[in-house]
Amino acid sequence: MINKKFTLAGRPIGRPISDDDFEYKEEELREINDNEVLLENLVIEFQPAQKGWMEQISNYVAPLEIGDVMRCSGIARVLETKSEKFKKGDIVIGETCWQTHPILSQDKVEKVKDESMATKYLGALGGTGLTAYFGVTKISKPNPGDTVLITGAAGGVGSIAGQIFKIAGCKVIGIAGGKEKCDILIDEFGFDGAIDYRSDDLNNSIKELCPEGVNVLYDNVGGRILNDCLNHLAMNARVAICGIISRHKTDNSNFGPENYSNLIFKRATMQGFIMFDYMSEADAARNQIKKWILEEKINCKEDIQEGFENAPNTLRRLFESKNKGKQLLKIAD
Amino acid sequence: MINKKFTLAGRPIGRPISDDDFEYKEEELREINDNEVLLENLVIEFQPAQKGWMEQISNYVAPLEIGDVMRCSGIARVLETKSEKFKKGDIVIGETCWQTHPILSQDKVEKVKDESMATKYLGALGGTGLTAYFGVTKISKPNPGDTVLITGAAGGVGSIAGQIFKIAGCKVIGIAGGKEKCDILIDEFGFDGAIDYRSDDLNNSIKELCPEGVNVLYDNVGGRILNDCLNHLAMNARVAICGIISRHKTDNSNFGPENYSNLIFKRATMQGFIMFDYMSEADAARNQIKKWILEEKINCKEDIQEGFENAPNTLRRLFESKNKGKQLLKIAD
Repeated sequence: MINKKFTLAGRPIGRPISDDDFEYKEEELREINDNEVLLENLVIEFQPAQKGWMEQISNYVAPLEIGDVMRCSGIARVLETKSEKFKKGDIVIGETCWQTHPILSQDKVEKVKDESMATKYLGALGGTGLTAYFGVTKISKPNPGDTVLITGAAGGVGSIAGQIFKIAGCKVIGIAGGKEKCDILIDEFGFDGAIDYRSDDLNNSIKELCPEGVNVLYDNVGGRILNDCLNHLAMNARVAICGIISRHKTDNSNFGPENYSNLIFKRATMQGFIMFDYMSEADAARNQIKKWILEEKINCKEDIQEGFENAPNTLRRLFESKNKGKQLLKIAD
Repeated sequence: MINKKFTLAGRPIGRPISDDDFEYKEEELREINDNEVLLENLVIEFQPAQKGWMEQISNYVAPLEIGDVMRCSGIARVLETKSEKFKKGDIVIGETCWQTHPILSQDKVEKVKDESMATKYLGALGGTGLTAYFGVTKISKPNPGDTVLITGAAGGVGSIAGQIFKIAGCKVIGIAGGKEKCDILIDEFGFDGAIDYRSDDLNNSIKELCPEGVNVLYDNVGGRILNDCLNHLAMNARVAICGIISRHKTDNSNFGPENYSNLIFKRATMQGFIMFDYMSEADAARNQIKKWILEEKINCKEDIQEGFENAPNTLRRLFESKNKGKQLLKIAD
């Protein structure tokens, strides 16, 4: 049987991802060993951090070397098993990477108990949801009535974070690119307001929608958008630095927010975080998010592309501000 | 009797302070009213915030209007009194401003009990020392053994902050301009290391002197120096944003620190503060600093210029990186 895969071929540092950053390969699958399973990859997930892994400029996860299969999580079906833990046909989650037929050790995959929620474990119940949850609860410390401003609000993390802030009793304003996404923020995610950074005057719009200032700024974007947002901090504001997707655009990479000076005038705190630091609380967080999903308090919108060959294009959607909700790619049914 | 004074005549926004930003005036003194005192201004103090008051771009203190006498604190002698609280010859502290003979309400001045320490109340026991003290204790949260990096380390706040970090058991490295100041950091303030930003390669020097990274960055400077410092944060670092004196230089005003991205990778916190927020604890802080001064654990170095007419030049020394320790101006004996 043939395994198709994409390996890392280039490091897109200071430039967008190109097709040449990946090498497409087909290989004959080896026999599986004891305690291994052969999987059929069904759905894989995409997140901005993956470009960081390709660049390897800051080693906050195990490095991705040239020639390694591109790393990601996925939902897969067990095709063959030499593990007592799994039987053929089981639906599992694991680091399946950009390949059609991963062979993984039984320790590296987990059975998905509730198959109807399988893809949620790649998004709202996976790293995306945990990042949003810990970013809100550990870093942003929202109070009911706070005004929260979220950048990259229509993305996987931003959309979940916004809904958790709503549950916490906050007024939530989102910034996203384009009218369609702004409508989604209000109609599907229940935000109180939306700003289109492509067509609106950011400073005026923030001032209008956040007249008493921003108590919590949840930033996924950085760059000039962050800088404009910093203009509008309320006293004792918290700024959660969750990501800097703008640094991947060549037009404003390496843009420092000069308005960090407002941290002084507003006695504000800007804090970076990575969800890995809170993994001891991940199960409790996942249970809470699952409860909210079942109560329909959180809408886990998924943006599902199709076809294994589209993996590179699907990753690029994140940096072209195209995805609406969590970016996924369906590889097989 | 004649009062000489400098009033605000221009707002030096985005440019250095010029002589034309002040108007020199002489006026015949009026009679003092009940509950007022006529003072002879002896020593006045200078701090970077004073340029901020002139600019009035962020109203974190009562605004300074064009035509107002330049505001500052000073030590003065009572020449005439219609107050029961003060007698002729008393040494007092208050907002004496840039003038030779202030008339102030009795509520606006306080008697200096320990005249030998009078000028300390303009520095280490005044706003300068309190800023350092609260910046260390409330924002930086040092642990014994932490590596602390201080920018603007030879200035009033930086030199006191560094010595408080030493008392807290930290390794303290200071950044200052010029060899003379760097020698002072080590010889007079007891720092563990000094970096001359004018002649040293900042990145290499920080790496060499802080091989395990910077646990606390106490920043008075901003700009490219802050940006280089952010390169070297240790995990869970705290960055205290105390001031941004570099913004007053035209060559790198409005420079945002692109390396704020390291806040994510190092799970670090950057926090701005103003000492006014902690005034309920000011007496306790002052007592503690006074104790340290008497124990000779804190050296309150003063940079004393002379002559009332030199007030504008003396203020400029702060922005030309000339002062060594707290900047004062002696007006009369």
